[in-house]
Amino acid sequence: MDSAVSLAEARAAGHEPHALSFRYGQRHAVELAAAARVCAAQGVSDQRVLDLDLALIGGSALTDDIEVPKGRDERSIGAGVPVTYVPARNTIFLSVALGLAEVLGARRIYLGVNAVDYSGYPDCRPEFLRAFEALASVATAAGTERGERFVLEAPLLALSKAGIVQRAAELDVDLGLTVSCYDPSGTDAAPIACGGCDACQLRLKGFAEAGLVDPVTYA
Amino acid sequence: MDSAVSLAEARAAGHEPHALSFRYGQRHAVELAAAARVCAAQGVSDQRVLDLDLALIGGSALTDDIEVPKGRDERSIGAGVPVTYVPARNTIFLSVALGLAEVLGARRIYLGVNAVDYSGYPDCRPEFLRAFEALASVATAAGTERGERFVLEAPLLALSKAGIVQRAAELDVDLGLTVSCYDPSGTDAAPIACGGCDACQLRLKGFAEAGLVDPVTYA
Repeated sequence: MDSAVSLAEARAAGHEPHALSFRYGQRHAVELAAAARVCAAQGVSDQRVLDLDLALIGGSALTDDIEVPKGRDERSIGAGVPVTYVPARNTIFLSVALGLAEVLGARRIYLGVNAVDYSGYPDCRPEFLRAFEALASVATAAGTERGERFVLEAPLLALSKAGIVQRAAELDVDLGLTVSCYDPSGTDAAPIACGGCDACQLRLKGFAEAGLVDPVTYA
Repeated sequence: MDSAVSLAEARAAGHEPHALSFRYGQRHAVELAAAARVCAAQGVSDQRVLDLDLALIGGSALTDDIEVPKGRDERSIGAGVPVTYVPARNTIFLSVALGLAEVLGARRIYLGVNAVDYSGYPDCRPEFLRAFEALASVATAAGTERGERFVLEAPLLALSKAGIVQRAAELDVDLGLTVSCYDPSGTDAAPIACGGCDACQLRLKGFAEAGLVDPVTYA
C-alpha cells in the first residue's frame, strides 16, 4: 500500500519511475506479485527484482521462524522495535537503490516509509533518511566527482495510515492490488490477509478512520 | 590480499571474526574460493556468502561486458573513478555487514579499503567510512534504543600496497592463498593472474617495493 502510493506520488510529481523490488527471503513473497500488479497498473515499464537472501542474516520474524505476533493492542504495536524488524533492511535496500540510481542517472529515490512505521522501526525515521542522504553524496562517483546530490523522497513520512488511504483515493491508486499482511493465505494472485497481524490491524484502522472500505480479501 | 590482511588484523586485535563474502555477479568469482581458503587458514569457522546479483544494477567492468583495462600506466590508474567501480558496492556490502553485526551482537566491522584504492573509488575514502558510521547509529535498533555505536575498522586505510605486503609478512598471512586479478585464467583452486590489469599491476608493484616475491602464479 505504502509503496503503491509512493509510486503514484512520484508519477504525480512528473517523474518516470524505475521500480526496484527485493526477493529477500520474506515470508510474504506474495508482495512481489502485488508489486508487479501495481507497476503494471501505473504504467511502469522498468521493474527490477533483486534476489537477496536476508535469511543469511536472520534476526526477524519476517525471514526467520519466529512467530508473527497477532492481535496485539495498539499500545503494544507502537512500543519499541517489533520482532518483524529486519536488521538494517532499509539501509540495504536503499544502498542498492542508490547504485541503480547512479547508473540510471536518477537523483531521486522514493520510498514508502511513514509516521506509523517510524514509531517502531529505526530505519524509517527522518534522522535515518538524512544520514543516508549524507552518505550518498560521499559514496558515489556522481556525488564525489560532480557534486551531485541524491534526494530521498518519502512522501508518506508525515501521514497516518488513514492519510495514506485518503491520498490513494485522491491519486486514483487501486489498493485492491496491494497486500500488507505479514502472514497471508490464498495464492500470490489472490492473497487472503490474516486480519490479525500488526500490518493488517494498522491497515484496517486506516481504512476505518478514512471512512473507506478496504478492497482486499480478509480471512 | 587486502581482505586477508584485514582479517588477520582483526584476529591480532583479539577478536573472533565472522566472515562475510558476496557472490555479486563479479567476473572473478574465483575470489570466493580464495576467501574460503583464507578463512580456513585463519581458523574462521563462520564464513557466510551472500548471493546478490549486482548485474541487475550494471555499470561496471567487474559485472558487465565492459572490457577490463590492461597495461595502463601508473598515472592513469590513479586518475578519476575507474570503469571497474561498481556503483555503491561498498555501501551495499557494508549495509549487509551492519545487519549481520546487529544480529550477532558484533560492533566492529573490518574492511580492507586502503590508500591506493581510495585515490579512485569514492566508497574507499575516510569521509565515506565516517558517513557510514553516522548512518549505522541511526539505522539500527542497537544504535537507536541502546545508544550503541558501530565502528568501521579499516586497518589498511593508510597503507600502500607495499605496506600491506609487509604487514602480511609480519602477521604471517599466506598471500599465496589470495587472488587480486580482475581477469584471471586457470581454475578457482589454482587461478592464474593476468599480470596486466590495474589490480595485478598494483599488487606486483607492492611486492617489488616491499622486496618480496609474490607467491601467486602469473600468466
